[in-house]
Amino acid sequence: MAALIESPSIAPRRATTVHRWDYEADVVVVGLGCAGASAAIEARAGDADVLVLERAGAGGGASTMSGGVLYLGGGTAIQRACGIEDSAEDMYRFLLATMGPEADGPRVALYAQESVEHFDWLVARGVPFKPSLWPLPAWTPPTEDGLMWMGEEAYPFAEVARPAPRGHRPTALGRSGWILMECLLRSAVESGARIESDVNVDRLVTGDDGAVVGVVARRYGKQVTVRARGGVVLATGGFVFNDDMLAEHAPVLLPHTKIGTDYDDGRSIRMAQAVGAATRRMDAGEGSINFSPSLMAAGMVVNAVGQRFINEDVYPGRIGQMAMFHQHARAYLVFDEEAYESIPENLRHGRRPEWVCESVAELEQEIGLPERSLQSTIDLYNHHAARGEDPFFHKAAKWLRPLRSPFAAMDVRAKRMDGPPDPADRGTGFRVFTLGGLRTTLDGAVQNLDGEPIPGLFAAGRTASGLPSWGYISGTSLGDGTFFGRRAGAAAGRA
Amino acid sequence: MAALIESPSIAPRRATTVHRWDYEADVVVVGLGCAGASAAIEARAGDADVLVLERAGAGGGASTMSGGVLYLGGGTAIQRACGIEDSAEDMYRFLLATMGPEADGPRVALYAQESVEHFDWLVARGVPFKPSLWPLPAWTPPTEDGLMWMGEEAYPFAEVARPAPRGHRPTALGRSGWILMECLLRSAVESGARIESDVNVDRLVTGDDGAVVGVVARRYGKQVTVRARGGVVLATGGFVFNDDMLAEHAPVLLPHTKIGTDYDDGRSIRMAQAVGAATRRMDAGEGSINFSPSLMAAGMVVNAVGQRFINEDVYPGRIGQMAMFHQHARAYLVFDEEAYESIPENLRHGRRPEWVCESVAELEQEIGLPERSLQSTIDLYNHHAARGEDPFFHKAAKWLRPLRSPFAAMDVRAKRMDGPPDPADRGTGFRVFTLGGLRTTLDGAVQNLDGEPIPGLFAAGRTASGLPSWGYISGTSLGDGTFFGRRAGAAAGRA
Repeated sequence: MAALIESPSIAPRRATTVHRWDYEADVVVVGLGCAGASAAIEARAGDADVLVLERAGAGGGASTMSGGVLYLGGGTAIQRACGIEDSAEDMYRFLLATMGPEADGPRVALYAQESVEHFDWLVARGVPFKPSLWPLPAWTPPTEDGLMWMGEEAYPFAEVARPAPRGHRPTALGRSGWILMECLLRSAVESGARIESDVNVDRLVTGDDGAVVGVVARRYGKQVTVRARGGVVLATGGFVFNDDMLAEHAPVLLPHTKIGTDYDDGRSIRMAQAVGAATRRMDAGEGSINFSPSLMAAGMVVNAVGQRFINEDVYPGRIGQMAMFHQHARAYLVFDEEAYESIPENLRHGRRPEWVCESVAELEQEIGLPERSLQSTIDLYNHHAARGEDPFFHKAAKWLRPLRSPFAAMDVRAKRMDGPPDPADRGTGFRVFTLGGLRTTLDGAVQNLDGEPIPGLFAAGRTASGLPSWGYISGTSLGDGTFFGRRAGAAAGRA
Repeated sequence: MAALIESPSIAPRRATTVHRWDYEADVVVVGLGCAGASAAIEARAGDADVLVLERAGAGGGASTMSGGVLYLGGGTAIQRACGIEDSAEDMYRFLLATMGPEADGPRVALYAQESVEHFDWLVARGVPFKPSLWPLPAWTPPTEDGLMWMGEEAYPFAEVARPAPRGHRPTALGRSGWILMECLLRSAVESGARIESDVNVDRLVTGDDGAVVGVVARRYGKQVTVRARGGVVLATGGFVFNDDMLAEHAPVLLPHTKIGTDYDDGRSIRMAQAVGAATRRMDAGEGSINFSPSLMAAGMVVNAVGQRFINEDVYPGRIGQMAMFHQHARAYLVFDEEAYESIPENLRHGRRPEWVCESVAELEQEIGLPERSLQSTIDLYNHHAARGEDPFFHKAAKWLRPLRSPFAAMDVRAKRMDGPPDPADRGTGFRVFTLGGLRTTLDGAVQNLDGEPIPGLFAAGRTASGLPSWGYISGTSLGDGTFFGRRAGAAAGRA
C-alpha cells in the first residue's frame, strides 16, 4: 500500500464520492511560484476567497532559484530612465521571432501591449528595478543594473524589430529571483490569500458535468479534500524532474542537469490531461551553458567537429539551446588572448580555459577535434572577420576581428574550474528545464482537445505552454508566469 | 450546423445515449491500411466477429502509396537464400540504436525476436519476395530484388551490431506498397472480416465504467452507431495532414510535402485522448529527400553554409531527417564527374544537377554559399579522403576518394528536373509524415496517463507511437503496423 500512497493515480475523483470538504475557497491555487502568487493576488483583487496549496514547506519554487529577469518593454519607466526608445510593436515582432517557430501571435501581442502596465504592477508589488543599463552580453551582470540586452541587437532579430534592451532585473548583485518572489509572496499574504504549505495535490475532483470543483491532496500522509467554488489554478511548474515524461516527450533534455525544484514533476499536467486537457510543445526546452556570453561574442563557439553553428552574439541561452538540440550537446568556446583580456574578469564566470596553446593545430589536437578542422574554421572566420563580415552566421561587425595566437578553449562539459562550486553541475554542461505544457486561453482557462475551456480549470507558468513556444529568452518564463498567472487568477475569481 | 457536421467534437459519447446500434461486432477495426488489415486478419484467426470501418471508398491508405519495404530480419528465408547471416540479437541492437533516442527496448526486442515468424506470416498471406539482394544505396532499387541494405553498414550502427541487409521488398519494379496491401486486403476479405467503406468515425462510445464499447460514425451524411462487444482497434494513420496538430506538436514538419492520405488527420489520436489516452513522441517525424542515395554516398551533402553534417552512406532517410530537423531543411548534394559517372543512370532518379562548374570557387558562388565555405569543406574532405578516412562523420572507406573538377551540385529544394513529374512535389524538397501517437502496450492496448490499459481500446500503425521512436528507417513503419496490428487485433479478439 505504501507505493499506492506514494504515487497514486492521477485519474480525477468524482465529487459525489467526496463526503466532506476539509477546505473551501472560491479560487484554489495549486503551487506558489511566480505564477501561483500572481494568480492569488489578482484573484483577491477581484475579492474572491483564495486558498493557495503549496507542496513545499514554503512558497517560492523554481522562481526563487531563477536569475530573476523579466522580459518587459514597450517603454517601461526603467527603459525611459535609461533613454531607451521602445514600442509594443517592436517588442511583439522580436518576441514572435525569438519565441518561434509557431509562436502564439495573440498571446505575444497581448503580452507586448500590456507589458508597461505589467511592469508598473510589479513595481506596485514592491519589486525594485534600478534605472541603469548593463551594456555587455552576460547571464547576470556583475552590477545591480536593472536593464540588460537579451540578444535584441543580433541577427536575424535586429532585422525584424528595432532593437531595445528589455531584460528587467530586480535589484541585486547576482541572481535576483528571490527578490521577485519575496515581493510577490509578501503581496500574496497581504492580499488576504490563505496559504497552506506541505500540501501535495494528487488529483482533481470533477462534478457530474465534467467541471473541476476541487482537488484531493495529502498532507503529512493524510488525505485532504479541497473544494473550489469558482476554479482551480494549476501553477506547479514544468516536468523536468520527471524522467519518464522526458523520455516520452523531450528526450534531448534527459541527460542534463535539471533546474527547478524536485516538485517540477509534471503531475499537474497529467492530472489535467486526465480530465481531458490538451497539451502542446511537450518536446520544447531550454539548455543554458556555463560559457561567458561576452567571451562567446568575442571568440567563437564550435561543435564536436570544429564547425561554427551560430552567431555568438545572439542571446546566450539560444546558443545553449541550439547546441543541445542540434549539435549533440557538444560545444567548445574558442578564443585568443586579446578576446580574453577584453572581457572584464567579473564576466568570465571564474572559469579558466581547459586548453591554452600557441597554435591552432596544437589546440585542435589537444581538444581531440578532427585534424585541420579548427584550423580551417579559424582561417575562414579570420578571412571574413578581417573585412568585418560573417557571411556564415552574421555576427555583428563590432565583435569581428581575426583571432591570433595564442589560443585557448573551454569545453561545455567541463565543470567550473575556479570560483564557488555549483552543486547542481553534474558535468554535462547544460542546465535544462521544460517549456511545453497545457494548452490554455489567454485567460488561463485550460482547453480540452476540442479547444473548449474545461469549466473550473485554469493553469499558468510552466504548467502551461505559454509565451515561449520552442524558442526562449530569459525573462519570458517569469514574464509569462506573472502576466498570465495574473490573468488566470482574475478569470478564476470571476468563474 | 454545417460546420458542426463537418467537424464535430471528438468528445466521447456515453453508451446510455445510444438507443440503437446500426452495426455490432466483437472487434471493430477503424481504418484499413496495413495495421487495420493485419488486425482484422488476426482477430478473425481467433474467431472473433470482425467489422472494419474505412473512411475512404476502399482500403489501402498510406500503406498502398508507400515504397512497400518491411524491415525484417534475424534470418528470414530471403536472407538465407541470399547467403546473409543474421540474428535477432543483431537486429535488436541495430534497431535500438537507429530508432532512438529512447527507443522502446521491450518493443524492439519482441519485434526482432518474432521477425522471422512475421516474415513467414506475410508470405502465407501471399506477399511475394524475390530472393535476391540489391547491393547499392537506393530509395527503391531499379530491379525486383527482394532484399536491400538500409544503412546497416554505416557508422555508428556497424559498430553496435553485425551488419545485415534487412529491407524486404514485395516483388515489383518500383514502389511495392500496393502489392503488400493487395495481399493483406485479399486476406482480410478471405478471413471473413466484414468491411464497410465510406464510414467516417467521429467519436468513441464509452460505458459507465469508462470502457470503450463502440463508435459513432457518419456515412453519406447520416449517423451510424457501431457496437464493439470486445474492442475497438484504431488504425487510421498519423496526423501529418492536420496543420493545427503539426503547429502544436511538430512544427518542423509543417512547411513540407505531406505524404499519406488526407485522412491522416490525427482524429483517432484525439478521440482516444478524449477518453484519457496518453500520447508520446508527438514531435517525431521523417523527411525523405529526392537525392540519389548512391550519389550522396559517392559525393557529399552540405548545409546552407557549405558544412557537411552527416556520413553520406548512412540510411538516406536519416540524411533527410537530420537536414530537416537540424539544418533548417537546407541541403546541397555536391559531387564530381567521376562520382556521377560511377552511379548507374537508373539510380540517379532522373535528376540532373542544377549547377555544373569547373572550379569549386565558381560552384560555391553559383549556389550562393559563403565565399570559401565549400572550398574549405572540399579541401578538408579531400585531405582525409586521400587516406581513406573521414574523421568528421566516419563515412566508410569504400566511398572515400578526393573529389576533383569538374563539380556539380543539386539543391534539395529543386523540383525534379527530368523524368516523370511528381505531383506531390511542391518544392520544399522534404516529404514528411508523423511518427508520434498513442501510447500502447505490446498488445496494442491504449494506455491512459497512469499507464493502465483503457478497457476496449486498441491502436496500431501510425495512430500509435511504436517501433520508431524519434529515429526512423524505411520498413519500420510498415513492419510495426503489420506486426503490432496483428497483436492488437488478436488482443481485441480476446477482450
